[in-house]
Amino acid sequence: MAAVYGGVEGGGTHSQAVLVGADGRILAETEGLCTNHWLVGTELCVERIQAMVEEAKRQAGLDPTVPLCALGLSLSGGDEEEALLEELRRRCPELSHSFCVSSDAAGAMATASERGGIVLIAGTGSNCHLVNPDGTESSCGGWGHMLGDEGSAYWIAHRAVKTVFDSMDNMEVSPHDVGYVKEAMFQYFKISSRMGLLPHLYRTFQKAEFAGFCLKVADGAQAGDALCRHLFLQAGELLAHHVLAVLPRVDESLFRGELGLPIVCVGSVWKSWELMREGFVQALVGARGGDSMGAFSHFSLLRLRHSSALGGASLGARHVGHKLPLDYGSNADVFYTHRF
Amino acid sequence: MAAVYGGVEGGGTHSQAVLVGADGRILAETEGLCTNHWLVGTELCVERIQAMVEEAKRQAGLDPTVPLCALGLSLSGGDEEEALLEELRRRCPELSHSFCVSSDAAGAMATASERGGIVLIAGTGSNCHLVNPDGTESSCGGWGHMLGDEGSAYWIAHRAVKTVFDSMDNMEVSPHDVGYVKEAMFQYFKISSRMGLLPHLYRTFQKAEFAGFCLKVADGAQAGDALCRHLFLQAGELLAHHVLAVLPRVDESLFRGELGLPIVCVGSVWKSWELMREGFVQALVGARGGDSMGAFSHFSLLRLRHSSALGGASLGARHVGHKLPLDYGSNADVFYTHRF
Repeated sequence: MAAVYGGVEGGGTHSQAVLVGADGRILAETEGLCTNHWLVGTELCVERIQAMVEEAKRQAGLDPTVPLCALGLSLSGGDEEEALLEELRRRCPELSHSFCVSSDAAGAMATASERGGIVLIAGTGSNCHLVNPDGTESSCGGWGHMLGDEGSAYWIAHRAVKTVFDSMDNMEVSPHDVGYVKEAMFQYFKISSRMGLLPHLYRTFQKAEFAGFCLKVADGAQAGDALCRHLFLQAGELLAHHVLAVLPRVDESLFRGELGLPIVCVGSVWKSWELMREGFVQALVGARGGDSMGAFSHFSLLRLRHSSALGGASLGARHVGHKLPLDYGSNADVFYTHRF
Repeated sequence: MAAVYGGVEGGGTHSQAVLVGADGRILAETEGLCTNHWLVGTELCVERIQAMVEEAKRQAGLDPTVPLCALGLSLSGGDEEEALLEELRRRCPELSHSFCVSSDAAGAMATASERGGIVLIAGTGSNCHLVNPDGTESSCGGWGHMLGDEGSAYWIAHRAVKTVFDSMDNMEVSPHDVGYVKEAMFQYFKISSRMGLLPHLYRTFQKAEFAGFCLKVADGAQAGDALCRHLFLQAGELLAHHVLAVLPRVDESLFRGELGLPIVCVGSVWKSWELMREGFVQALVGARGGDSMGAFSHFSLLRLRHSSALGGASLGARHVGHKLPLDYGSNADVFYTHRF
C-alpha cells in the first residue's frame, strides 16, 4: 500500500488515533479509552492502542495485517517509555514498522506548529511543555495526581472534595459556603456520607472517574456558586504558574510573532476558560509587574482543531525520516489574546 | 480456659496484638505488618489479624482453636467497618466469640484513660480524635493520604518530594535549598532521575514504603538541614491545627485536670517532637491569642507505654459487658506540658 503514517493521542480519560497519508491527508480517525500506562498498566495500554489503530486501518480500507510506515504515540505519561515501546514491538509487529513515543504535550505542539511554542494541558491531568524554535525543550508539571496535576480536572475535583472535608472537620474555614459542592459530591459519587467517598479514592480509584466530578464543579460555577467559581479561578492561576515556570527558558523569538507567545491549550478544562480567565491573566500580569519580562508583550491562547494524534503521526513520520506536510494554519484557532 | 480478651492495634506500617486476662494482666504480645484494610485490602487484613492473634495464643500457652471472649480491633482506617467484621466472623470463628472494630484513635484513648481526652496520631498517616468524659466524640482528619494525612510521615515524605519537584520545575521557589532532600530522595528510592520516582507513587505504591522516606527527612533535620527542619515545623503546625479543629467540642472538664488538656500522641513521627515543638506550640498560642479559649490554660502531651492493642482489648471486652481493670496511671507518660 501507499505510505501511511499513524498517530495516537492518549489522554487520562479518552484516546484518539489517526491515519495520515504521506501527503498529510487524514485517512481515518478512531477513538478509545485512557492509554496512560501509569493509570491502566502497560498491557491494557498496548491493547487499546492496537484496537484503535486496527479499527482505523479498517476504516481507511487498509489491510490490518500490513504494518504502517510509522506510528507516533503522543501519550499522557508517555515520556521515556522504552518498556511500552518494547511491548508494542513484541506484541504488535503487524501494527507498524516503526514506533515512537512522546509526551502528550509534544504531540500537541507538533499538531499546532513547526516553530515551537508552549503547550499547556489541562485535561484529566495537567502538564506544560515548551518547545523553542531551535528544538530545545523545557517542562513543568506532568507528574500525575500524586505530585500535583495543578489546574487539571483531577485537581479541581480534588480541591472541591478536600474543601468540603476540611470544612466539615473544622480544619480549615472555606472561603465560601460548601453546600453546593457537598451535595454535588454526594450525588456524583452516589454516597450518603464522607466515608462513602473513600473507596473512590482508594480501593476502586479511577482517576478519570474522580476527575469527572470537575464537570459538576463547572456546572456549579456556571450557576454562580461562589466556591466553584473560586476553584476555577485558582485553577487558572495555577495553569498560569506553569507558563511562568518555563518562561525564563522561552527563546525571545517566540515572543515576537504576530500572536505573541503562542500557548496551545489542550484538554477539556479549557472549555471552562471563561471561568479561569481572570485567575490566569492576573497571575501573568502580577508576575510580569515584579520582574522585567522584556520582550514578553503579549500572548495568545490557541485551541487545536485536530487531535494531537495528528502531531503524533508527524513525530512518528519524522522518526523514520519523512516530513509530513501538515497545514498548520488550519490546525489551531486563537481563542484569546492578551497584551500587557 | 479462663476468660481471655484480645486486642489489635493496626497501623499503616506495623500492627500489634495483645492478649489480656480478665484481671487486666497482659498474657502475650505479638507483631505483624500493616492491617489498614484501605491499604492492603480486607483479605490480607484478616489474614494478618488471624496470624498475629493465633501466634499470641500460642505464646500465652492457649489452644489456638479455642475462641477468645472478645477481640477488639483498633485499626487505622477502621471506622464503620462492617464488611471487615463480617469477613472475620465468617473466616475466623475460632479466633474469638465476639469481634468489634474501632479507629486506631479510639483504641489509643482506651489505652490511656477512661476519662477521655484527645488522641493525636502522627504515624504513617495522621488523625485526631476527641473523646469527652460523657462519651461524646469528635474527629478531624484520618481520611488517608489522598485527602490529607497532614503532619504524618507520609505527609512529610510527600511534602519533601513535592518541594524538590516544584523547585526543579521552577514552579515554586523553595524556602530553603533542596540539595539534601533531593540527594536523600534519590538514595532512598534508589533512583537516578525524577522519572524513577513515578513507579513508587503509582504502579507499585506502598504507603508505608513511601512514608518511610520521612526518616531520612528526620535525619536531615537532626543534622541541621534547613528544608528538613522547615518541614517538621510545618508538620507540628498542622498537627496543632487538628487539635484546634476539635477544640470547640472539648468538654471544659478536660481542661481542668492536673495535666490540662490531655493529648495522647501516637505514632512514630512523635519521636521527632523536638523538631516539631515550636510549630506545634506556636500554632496553639497563635490561635489562642485570636479567640478566647477560656478554660484552656494548659495542655500535656502523653506517650503510651503500651500498644493501643491494649485499649482495643478493653473496648472488645466492654463490647461483651466486661470492664477490663487497666492500670491507666502506668499506661502513659507525660512528655511535655505547656501553660499559655
